[in-house]
Amino acid sequence: MAEKMKAVIKAHPGPGLEMTMVDVPTVGPGDVLVRVKATSICGTDLHIYRWDPWAQGRIRPPLIVGHELCGEVVAVGERVTQVQVGDFISAESHIVCGTCVYCRTGRGHICPNTQIIGVDRDGAFAEYVVLPEENAWINPPDMPVELAVLQENFGNSVHTAFATDLSARKVLVTGCGPVSLMMLAIVKAVGARSIYATDISSYRLGLARTMGADVTLNPAKEDVVAAVRQATEGEGVDVLLEMSGAPSAIRDGFRLLKDGGVAVLLGIPPAPFEFDLANEVIFKGITVYGIIGRRLWETWYQMRGLLNSGVVDLRPVVTHRFPLDKFEEALEAMASGNSGKVVLFP
Amino acid sequence: MAEKMKAVIKAHPGPGLEMTMVDVPTVGPGDVLVRVKATSICGTDLHIYRWDPWAQGRIRPPLIVGHELCGEVVAVGERVTQVQVGDFISAESHIVCGTCVYCRTGRGHICPNTQIIGVDRDGAFAEYVVLPEENAWINPPDMPVELAVLQENFGNSVHTAFATDLSARKVLVTGCGPVSLMMLAIVKAVGARSIYATDISSYRLGLARTMGADVTLNPAKEDVVAAVRQATEGEGVDVLLEMSGAPSAIRDGFRLLKDGGVAVLLGIPPAPFEFDLANEVIFKGITVYGIIGRRLWETWYQMRGLLNSGVVDLRPVVTHRFPLDKFEEALEAMASGNSGKVVLFP
Amino acid sequence: MAEKMKAVIKAHPGPGLEMTMVDVPTVGPGDVLVRVKATSICGTDLHIYRWDPWAQGRIRPPLIVGHELCGEVVAVGERVTQVQVGDFISAESHIVCGTCVYCRTGRGHICPNTQIIGVDRDGAFAEYVVLPEENAWINPPDMPVELAVLQENFGNSVHTAFATDLSARKVLVTGCGPVSLMMLAIVKAVGARSIYATDISSYRLGLARTMGADVTLNPAKEDVVAAVRQATEGEGVDVLLEMSGAPSAIRDGFRLLKDGGVAVLLGIPPAPFEFDLANEVIFKGITVYGIIGRRLWETWYQMRGLLNSGVVDLRPVVTHRFPLDKFEEALEAMASGNSGKVVLFP
Amino acid sequence: MAEKMKAVIKAHPGPGLEMTMVDVPTVGPGDVLVRVKATSICGTDLHIYRWDPWAQGRIRPPLIVGHELCGEVVAVGERVTQVQVGDFISAESHIVCGTCVYCRTGRGHICPNTQIIGVDRDGAFAEYVVLPEENAWINPPDMPVELAVLQENFGNSVHTAFATDLSARKVLVTGCGPVSLMMLAIVKAVGARSIYATDISSYRLGLARTMGADVTLNPAKEDVVAAVRQATEGEGVDVLLEMSGAPSAIRDGFRLLKDGGVAVLLGIPPAPFEFDLANEVIFKGITVYGIIGRRLWETWYQMRGLLNSGVVDLRPVVTHRFPLDKFEEALEAMASGNSGKVVLFP
Repeated sequence: MAEKMKAVIKAHPGPGLEMTMVDVPTVGPGDVLVRVKATSICGTDLHIYRWDPWAQGRIRPPLIVGHELCGEVVAVGERVTQVQVGDFISAESHIVCGTCVYCRTGRGHICPNTQIIGVDRDGAFAEYVVLPEENAWINPPDMPVELAVLQENFGNSVHTAFATDLSARKVLVTGCGPVSLMMLAIVKAVGARSIYATDISSYRLGLARTMGADVTLNPAKEDVVAAVRQATEGEGVDVLLEMSGAPSAIRDGFRLLKDGGVAVLLGIPPAPFEFDLANEVIFKGITVYGIIGRRLWETWYQMRGLLNSGVVDLRPVVTHRFPLDKFEEALEAMASGNSGKVVLFP
Repeated sequence: MAEKMKAVIKAHPGPGLEMTMVDVPTVGPGDVLVRVKATSICGTDLHIYRWDPWAQGRIRPPLIVGHELCGEVVAVGERVTQVQVGDFISAESHIVCGTCVYCRTGRGHICPNTQIIGVDRDGAFAEYVVLPEENAWINPPDMPVELAVLQENFGNSVHTAFATDLSARKVLVTGCGPVSLMMLAIVKAVGARSIYATDISSYRLGLARTMGADVTLNPAKEDVVAAVRQATEGEGVDVLLEMSGAPSAIRDGFRLLKDGGVAVLLGIPPAPFEFDLANEVIFKGITVYGIIGRRLWETWYQMRGLLNSGVVDLRPVVTHRFPLDKFEEALEAMASGNSGKVVLFP
Repeated sequence: MAEKMKAVIKAHPGPGLEMTMVDVPTVGPGDVLVRVKATSICGTDLHIYRWDPWAQGRIRPPLIVGHELCGEVVAVGERVTQVQVGDFISAESHIVCGTCVYCRTGRGHICPNTQIIGVDRDGAFAEYVVLPEENAWINPPDMPVELAVLQENFGNSVHTAFATDLSARKVLVTGCGPVSLMMLAIVKAVGARSIYATDISSYRLGLARTMGADVTLNPAKEDVVAAVRQATEGEGVDVLLEMSGAPSAIRDGFRLLKDGGVAVLLGIPPAPFEFDLANEVIFKGITVYGIIGRRLWETWYQMRGLLNSGVVDLRPVVTHRFPLDKFEEALEAMASGNSGKVVLFP
Repeated sequence: MAEKMKAVIKAHPGPGLEMTMVDVPTVGPGDVLVRVKATSICGTDLHIYRWDPWAQGRIRPPLIVGHELCGEVVAVGERVTQVQVGDFISAESHIVCGTCVYCRTGRGHICPNTQIIGVDRDGAFAEYVVLPEENAWINPPDMPVELAVLQENFGNSVHTAFATDLSARKVLVTGCGPVSLMMLAIVKAVGARSIYATDISSYRLGLARTMGADVTLNPAKEDVVAAVRQATEGEGVDVLLEMSGAPSAIRDGFRLLKDGGVAVLLGIPPAPFEFDLANEVIFKGITVYGIIGRRLWETWYQMRGLLNSGVVDLRPVVTHRFPLDKFEEALEAMASGNSGKVVLFP
């Protein structure tokens, strides 16, 4: 095996990323070394690229970025018992402590000691990456690489969609970024009665229809509240799946919820905003679920079920492919809004 | 309107049914009078026809039988407020008291004061039937008659399928009678990972494949436990939906359940039988749901969602159609096992 | 029976209430006439007395106010079947339609056609009041009048407390008005691990300790967030029961919730306010339940269980008693904050 | 530290146990060595003592028996990170794999690779025992030893009681062995409406009353079904907690369940028996939960909540105390039925 590898790093504080040669990482006793077959871009990677306030507070350069990946295991540490050299794996990027009350009660996704690959330690925009064995999810050997790389991010979709019952229900999805597009395939697959989706990008609304939305609406061009109310005979929807983080979308979404309905919130509002708890939550008897990450590891098993059965087809979500060398073009494609998922091949 | 009508009645204790002319029923202040457009045959009707011990204990002749129906409202009582003459309705056959603790807490399906149409009072194998307004479910005017008549029975399917989460799960369905066949369409629609179905009728296994089963097995011809275990890599299934009432099917089904799994029981065993609670329920940490009837009226709203969205197509389930006059041929078709749902047209 | 009776009415738009003589109401076919034995004061009655914007928009004078009551049935309509003359009843003040999707699925508490006694039709600050039979909850004949009159309001407490599991959990209760004080008895009775309660009235904090709070805190005098965090070894609480509607209490409450915790909101914020959905709900994976009214009739059966078993003792909550003639003194006592529940006797 | 220690062992196949001197066990890299302060006797220990068919099939002598214990950590392996020398710990006796689907989804209590201390590897009827770090639950230093030793077994009580809501409900507990006695304290603490308990030992019924039962019944002397039905005005109970494993108790328990009720089964029937699934589960719409072990580690945190708050007092359950040398007398006391929990002190 080579001793050096290509990697995209944040070399020092400030905007931008650069490709460079670094040492192939060493494998600890509980770790596996993975040759990256594909890695995809998440909004988090854009935050780091642009060096926004969140990135300034969290990232400690130098750091190899990227946390969505699949690849082949090429070496394992001496205490590794389940994963073997040659396994084709996808990574769960959240490395949790295993000893806190959350980890010990099936809620590792809110472990306060979480370390994230590509954020708190070296990541996957590289030829190799090292992970704890626990974070390597073994795929069927014949799983398409483009599908395998999506799983970590798809896990957010699954966690959101499975937070409440959707079968036979009217569902509004606000925001059609990649996580939402993958989620639409689930909402369709589990037998929702009707699916309304909103976004300000016409490109993404087109993908939303491909993935399962029955009706798509652009709040920049039309009155979403009026349109959904009309389409539902004045009733509104049973479930809101909020994926945008935009205060206006959140407000519209709650307004459209029927009394006794359920709001599932994954999108992150950039700042506190005026919210009418009395009229939008309390008087209506609404239940709200805040969603973060993926359940470890329940969500991964649910993903396996959805993907193995073929009820969900994620392929249309991958709209752009680049070699790792062209990471800047890839980041631009991602930032444009005229994209689904963007995949890099080292 | 005519004063007399054709009706299929149990005239006096003993086997058999006969067609005769009777008075069109009168409409009480809270009732609606329905001109029957279609009525379908349930296992209960066969019990009454054959005059088995259950029927001997419950039925008080003379009685017009039949409880699955759809039709047009032709008259309403003076206190009726929601249903109107001309409405196209399906009937919920369980007339509940509305005042007991069950009715007052959303569990009317277990009301101890229930009266069943065609069992405890005159039923639907006739040109007209009278119902309390509450039991008339208003359909879209353009709903196909053959679909509308199935709804009461389909409600059992919905109640069973929605008792637990099926999405992304491995599901075993034991018994493929009409309720089960309709339920298979739901199990498919809500994204089960894989669906195994068993029956001793090859005809019904063929219908089961049409309705959504991935694998069908005949316990008279093959070892169901071995086959499902192999198909699931030794694991077994997450959920058992037991629709047969056969002790051997129940035992096999529990044996195939994974630890921590869920059994939903709708099929009625004809008598007590030896059951291994220790090994099949307790040590495995199984949850068991006994299912009776339909939830009033939650199940009906869920049906509306499933049927309006088009995710469930029940049409292949109707395999036989007869005019009401040929009710004996229809009962034979139903008894043969080589049938799905049998519909009668008065 | 007398033809005239004393009643406290809102005679015409504007502040104030007055006592006058009016006709004893007539009993419709589905109604019961109740001789009021006790009636208690709710915050709603104060809104009507003061003629605030909500009252101006909702109340149509002339109107007899008051909706919390117990009394003896003295006449019943011709169609009444369950309630009998002589029954000792408490009233559910929400008269629901019984035919909408909410009423038909066990969620009548969010029926959009609700009429409230003492708000939308004549109420209980009078010698007699008329109710639909369905709204008369039959009490044991020997139930103390002061306990019976509290039940409608206690139903809010039960609905809030039973929205999530409290046993073995750390619970924060923000706001100690009468509904909250009664709820504290439940939180104690169901085995909470520790109970923290806040209010700006020292009088009510004293009652809170009587009713079951382990630690009481006055946010006007101390730093609630710091104090609860210290008492919980930095952890915070598992459950927030928000009863105040005060934005500062809501913010503090969410801040003190552990990741993965549950917030139950009954208090009504008077206006929209800045809320940090990202940090207080989404990143923490919080579940929020908006609570309105009582579940019809599940909550009433739960109340019966709590009160019959003796695990909950509500008597200390009644701090003031007045004859109906002194309704103005009673309203002042209620408005002072130095009171629990204020009861009037016609 | 000594090199030899006293231990109670099954030396070779056949009835009986003997005390002998053995080597103090060595500490693996992930293990802790515990000086046993107290150990208590479980029914499992009696099975091993008597060498019944279950024991013959499972136990591989020579083996130190006993799995309920508390003690002080006196040495830790090199990879241990959380537990420290000097910690006062109780043991979870189920050592699970951590890598199967159950362990990875918060359901380690049904891990198929479980090894049990004192059953599959050396146990706690000894001066010292070795455990994986994960299985050492750190107690407050001042927790009474007699309370600390009960926790593993109390975990079964908690797991059973928390399987369903008990607050404001009528509850029947069949069988009053030690797990049941501890559970009665929880049923009381969480505000059950009324608690009926049955056993054939008058001694245990006396303890049941001490622990919280409102009414106790001896099925050897009276008709339990008639008595509970009378006490509940013909209604029966909302919840059955079945702790005996006796077929007659199970049948009576289901017969007494109200329609729509919940049965939680922990007692192990010794063999399959005739059970009327149709009338006792399906027609009544019953939910049944099979309970095994304790949830890892949710149940332990719930225990901490119950014990720290003081809402549950387990002290009356310990009825017999012996030095380890008198283990045979202790086993006899346990076998007599005239005992609660029997504790040994090495």
